[in-house]
Parts: sequence; structure tokens; C-alpha cells
Amino acid sequence: MRNIKIIVQYNGKNYCGWQKQPDSMGIQGNLEYAIEKITGEKVKITGSGRTDAGVHALGQVANFFTESSIPAHRIPDALNSQLPKDISVIYAEEVDMEFHSRYSAKGKRYRYVIHNSRYRNPIVRETSYQVKYDLDVEKMKREAEALKGTHDFFGFMSSGSSVESTVRTITDVNITTEDDMIVMEFEGNGFLYNMVRIISGTLVDIGRGKIKKGMREIIEAKDRKEAGHTAPAHALFLKKVFY
Amino acid sequence: MRNIKIIVQYNGKNYCGWQKQPDSMGIQGNLEYAIEKITGEKVKITGSGRTDAGVHALGQVANFFTESSIPAHRIPDALNSQLPKDISVIYAEEVDMEFHSRYSAKGKRYRYVIHNSRYRNPIVRETSYQVKYDLDVEKMKREAEALKGTHDFFGFMSSGSSVESTVRTITDVNITTEDDMIVMEFEGNGFLYNMVRIISGTLVDIGRGKIKKGMREIIEAKDRKEAGHTAPAHALFLKKVFY
Repeated sequence: MRNIKIIVQYNGKNYCGWQKQPDSMGIQGNLEYAIEKITGEKVKITGSGRTDAGVHALGQVANFFTESSIPAHRIPDALNSQLPKDISVIYAEEVDMEFHSRYSAKGKRYRYVIHNSRYRNPIVRETSYQVKYDLDVEKMKREAEALKGTHDFFGFMSSGSSVESTVRTITDVNITTEDDMIVMEFEGNGFLYNMVRIISGTLVDIGRGKIKKGMREIIEAKDRKEAGHTAPAHALFLKKVFY
Repeated sequence: MRNIKIIVQYNGKNYCGWQKQPDSMGIQGNLEYAIEKITGEKVKITGSGRTDAGVHALGQVANFFTESSIPAHRIPDALNSQLPKDISVIYAEEVDMEFHSRYSAKGKRYRYVIHNSRYRNPIVRETSYQVKYDLDVEKMKREAEALKGTHDFFGFMSSGSSVESTVRTITDVNITTEDDMIVMEFEGNGFLYNMVRIISGTLVDIGRGKIKKGMREIIEAKDRKEAGHTAPAHALFLKKVFY
């Protein structure tokens, strides 16, 4: 038996998210189908975490166990030949039997992309959040600094999730602009349900002046109502998982 | 009568190109249809130049004459409400009656996007050229320098076009990379038919070592066979038109 780690990219547009649903295969189900096609085995693939419907990935990580002797470096091409064009395996390696995509993960990096313009952009329309209001990006950058460090992010979690602790550590926040695009990246040891989308929505609300409070105050309030709106899924990318 | 200049973005994927065809509206036909919807007038719209089937635009310029009194700043929203989602008018202004999108143009800037990876990327797959070979980007940058200046680009033109002169001036070439993406931009006073795609294909062939000659020698040969392949349309963007 071998444990195979893969890195997967996908365009989330046409999927119900990472996880299989009763009426939909999800990214997970498509990968399991492709693995069965090339190995003849029914496997269960484990991801580093779920991504919601519409969310994209540039570096999702998953692993599966197989009896197949196919060399790891051949796995991406083999799987890609069986996968839809909007899912792509870009890396595979054999790892220790103890490796677990989810439990072994030490951190993640997400990207959130904003198109700040009154008018739609036909190229990035489906992979960015169009914000029509003027945004004060310098203010967004300043306020985003308060996210760094270890905080109780209770106010940045959608209801319906049950976790033991809502304390998380954000190790890096980086906001860059090019023309009318704003790219925000967040790296940390873990993220609560919808946390990146709520952080992104809060930064947008701060940038347009709808929220007057500072990010530090909002975090300390530990109240979902003090944070901003949940920014849409189609502009969110899981960029990297760290082990 | 007023002369209206507009800036247009489009995703070329589903179009036969800028120009109307007997069996297809093209970008031009869609814009004329939208203008008729909002002004009630049948107009002919003039673009800064044609773009081929599949080519995108971030800053195509066009103009049309109208008797309508609709304020220029209202035109983008009005037209966008009548246009397909993959075409977007991002700017409009009233200009001198003498302004002509094509004849008044002083220069253009194009972008060509390469995804240099063995594996497809589901996010940029439809708007970049996947090159699976290792590319020596530093060599491409060095050789691209020879494009700058005034040269006879006869060897970088697809047959079937008739022009009086094949001499053009390239004022700027800029090649940048981010992860496995290579973005090449070319600015000049004008470009021959397929010139940007042939330059891009030649740089790829130089970067992978298929073409050993330098760019200067290739230009001086004035022979289409000495230049590289015509890189595909779906990775080309008309970025800006200068007046």
C-alpha cells in the first residue's frame, strides 16, 4: 500500500465545492472517479479541507492510498486525462503512510481578488468580486495589519459551524494592486468557516467607508454583526497548503 | 451630430473577432445593436483596428456618430445593459468630429500571456498559452530587446495581408513573470497582421531552444520562415490604444 499526495487546481464555477454531495460529485468525487479509472481501485480521497461551492483552488492538497505501482511522476498526466478540463492535478509524490492532508496541515494561504470598477471586466468577471464603490486601498492595507497575530476570530465565522476554539493565528496579510484589481492574500495556521470571505468583505466595507470602526476593534468585539458582509465565493482561491 | 469615443473590453472566446461577418455579429455588430437599442439610430461603429477571432481586449477604442443627447458619462451603463456579459464598455466621451478611432491612433499596446507548465491551469486555461517546454525567460528577455526600435518586420507578418510598408517602430517591450505565468507586453506605433502572435511564438521558440538564431538576425532575414510559430489567439489582449 502506498500513500499518494497530490496538488490540485480547480475552477470552482461548475462545482458544489470540494465535497461530494448526494446529487453531485464535487471535486472530490471527480478525483476519486479518475483514480478508479487509472488504478481500478475504489478509493476515498482526503482533502486538506473543504472548499465551498464556487471557490477555486491553485494549490489544494489531497491524499489517497493505493496498491497501484504507477510511478508518482506519471500520476498527474494520468489523472488529468480522466478529469474535466476545469480540474488539474499539477503534482504527485509518495509520502509516509502517516501523512494526512487535513491533520498534517500546518497552515494555508488564501487569495481574494477584487475588481474595483463601476464596469464589469469580461476577462476576470467570473474569478473576481466586482466592487463598484471607490475603495481607499491604503486604509484597507493599514487596517489589515491588525489581522496579523493570534486572535479570537469568533466574529469572523458564519453560524452553523461547530469548532472547539475560534482562536486562529494569521501570519501574513498582503494586499497589492494592479490597475483596477486588488489582490489580497491571507496566510495562517487555520481559518474558520467563511473567515476569509468575511475578512475580505469587512476590508471592502472599511475601504468604502461603510464601516467606520477599525479592524482591531471589530476583532475584539467578537460579534459577527460588527464585521462586514461575506464577500462572494467566486473570487476566493485556496492558494497553498503548508505541511 | 456628436462623435462618441468609447473604450471597450471583451473576452474574445465566443466571437469571430471584432469585425462583423456574414453569419456572425462580431464585437462590432454587438456594439452597433446596443447603440441602436439606446439611441434608436442605426449606426456604424469604427474600431481602432480589427482583432482576430478569439483575441481579447482590455482597451479597444471605437467611435460612432449620433444625434442622441444622452450624456457621455451615462453611455457605458446604458450600453452594458444591452450587451452580452463578455463585452463591456468602460468609458465614453464626446470628441472632436475629426476623431477617427483608426486613423487618429498613434500607437497600441498588446499583452501576450504564457502559462509555462506541464499541466493545465483551470483558472487561466482559456486566456493563456500553455507552453509545456522549459523556457529560458532570461534569454527571452535579452532577445526581446532587439525588437525595440524601427525595423522592417516583413518576416513577422502572416501572408494574405497587403500593406504599403512593413516597417514598424516598437517603443517598449516588457516581460514579467509570476510563478509559472509569463506576461509579455509590446508597444509600438502599429503592428502588422499577426505580428504580436508571431513575435510571441518566436520568443517561445527561442526560449525553449528550438530557434538558435538571435532576434536581430531573424528580423534582418525578412523571411517568415526564419521567425517562429504563430502563437494562439486566445492568449492575446489588445491592452491600450494611444492617441
